[in-house]
Amino acid sequence: MSIEKLTNLDRLCVHTITTKPWSIEEIIENYPKAGVKAVSVWRDLLQNRDASKIGAQIRDAGMEVASLVRGGFFTGKTEGEIQASLDDNRRAIDEASALGAPMIVLVCGAIPGQSIQRSLSQIQTGLETLLPYAETCGVKLGIEPLHPMYADSRSAICTMKTANDFAERYDSPYIGVVVDVFHLWWDPDLESECKRCGDHGNLFAFHICDWKMDMEDMLNDRGLMGEGVIRLREIRSWVEAAGFNGFHEVEIFSNRLWEGNQKEALERIKQAYLEYA
Amino acid sequence: MSIEKLTNLDRLCVHTITTKPWSIEEIIENYPKAGVKAVSVWRDLLQNRDASKIGAQIRDAGMEVASLVRGGFFTGKTEGEIQASLDDNRRAIDEASALGAPMIVLVCGAIPGQSIQRSLSQIQTGLETLLPYAETCGVKLGIEPLHPMYADSRSAICTMKTANDFAERYDSPYIGVVVDVFHLWWDPDLESECKRCGDHGNLFAFHICDWKMDMEDMLNDRGLMGEGVIRLREIRSWVEAAGFNGFHEVEIFSNRLWEGNQKEALERIKQAYLEYA
Repeated sequence: MSIEKLTNLDRLCVHTITTKPWSIEEIIENYPKAGVKAVSVWRDLLQNRDASKIGAQIRDAGMEVASLVRGGFFTGKTEGEIQASLDDNRRAIDEASALGAPMIVLVCGAIPGQSIQRSLSQIQTGLETLLPYAETCGVKLGIEPLHPMYADSRSAICTMKTANDFAERYDSPYIGVVVDVFHLWWDPDLESECKRCGDHGNLFAFHICDWKMDMEDMLNDRGLMGEGVIRLREIRSWVEAAGFNGFHEVEIFSNRLWEGNQKEALERIKQAYLEYA
Repeated sequence: MSIEKLTNLDRLCVHTITTKPWSIEEIIENYPKAGVKAVSVWRDLLQNRDASKIGAQIRDAGMEVASLVRGGFFTGKTEGEIQASLDDNRRAIDEASALGAPMIVLVCGAIPGQSIQRSLSQIQTGLETLLPYAETCGVKLGIEPLHPMYADSRSAICTMKTANDFAERYDSPYIGVVVDVFHLWWDPDLESECKRCGDHGNLFAFHICDWKMDMEDMLNDRGLMGEGVIRLREIRSWVEAAGFNGFHEVEIFSNRLWEGNQKEALERIKQAYLEYA
């Protein structure tokens, strides 16, 4: 179990949403200059772009693509909604394939007022339907459990346990779990579920930020690493003990950061990463 | 399993915090007029009051006391903090005893940045230390799991499973669990954990309100029953199937409700209770 401080940026990945004001071109120009080694691309930035060209530009700039964000939302009130979601997920897989992203991150969905069990059942059907296409395209599906405060409309999967249960239903290396510290830090079973996830080869990605005590907005007030209560280095030691050796993906939704200069934001992210991750 | 609409107010209890602007005297005057059958008393209202006299006044007004709210906060950074918490919890038990409350509700505590496991360990020590005194005084301890969004500073116990694990450690009818739909509705194991809780005779109380989609404040923007996404009648059917036949306790923290006329708020609560609980 390593809980040593990081000494370099070799595993630093940043999600494009973290620098939301920037276009994909500004990101490709500025991330490598700052020493960022990989990028997780949010789909909105690929609108009116050729994903394969963007992927090539990212690699030409010396970065890897860690993942395409995001698919999922398998829940629906009608068959039509569910079918539309599946169509969109297939497009996301196509985009990931064109971009050269090894994985899409899945926020699996929830419907306000619908029972959690029914949402989970719809998610299961969605995953089962999508998985063969993902396997054919060579794109992994990463199930991201979200914090229970988003269980009303974003994800009925709120814990590592539920995500692990889903990932283990399928004997496929193309379905696994995304560990995001913001969503999962509170869970007393997080260490054991990380181990379980790693033992099954299902720990696909590791997202970092912090949980601020004085959060002003339930969605867009995440903290930089070190600004909150999350024992980030301890959780990193758990995912590393589980065999994970991929990127540390900084994913921060923050009105505060988005309002400022994005180059300065990136510098603060780097400092926070080296100090606290 | 009953999922029938309620037809009367026989089991309606209101927490004093729900009508925060009112003094305990205003509450004793106005709750019975509105048809409220029981009250859960928050401790701040007993300051500079004689708890045994207040208890007698409540009963004279035709109401029962469901519980005293709240004890707990067993966590601490220092031994001194932990000792002070235990002293305060003993005072809470004394107050409950004087008031004639059969139970105190426990919000068990968390320390920002402290590991969840360490907080749980401190909670265990606190419960073990407090339980003999509670038994001597004939006051039950009700462990209330809080929503994971309060795991930073209020409660390391965030699920029914963790609360059940604690309650079952002790072979005592004086320690059990408080089910609050606001905190627990998202949990896919809620139905099975309610059954488990009832099977052990540990389901002590049932708190109701709603989870609003457009919550503006993480603490003080709870909804009236029916204003949000919680499948309240379904959860009521689960606690009833688990053998619970106590009060339905309306506990709503709401800046919006507190700003208005409290008699009108109480009427809205009654209507929402009969329509949605």
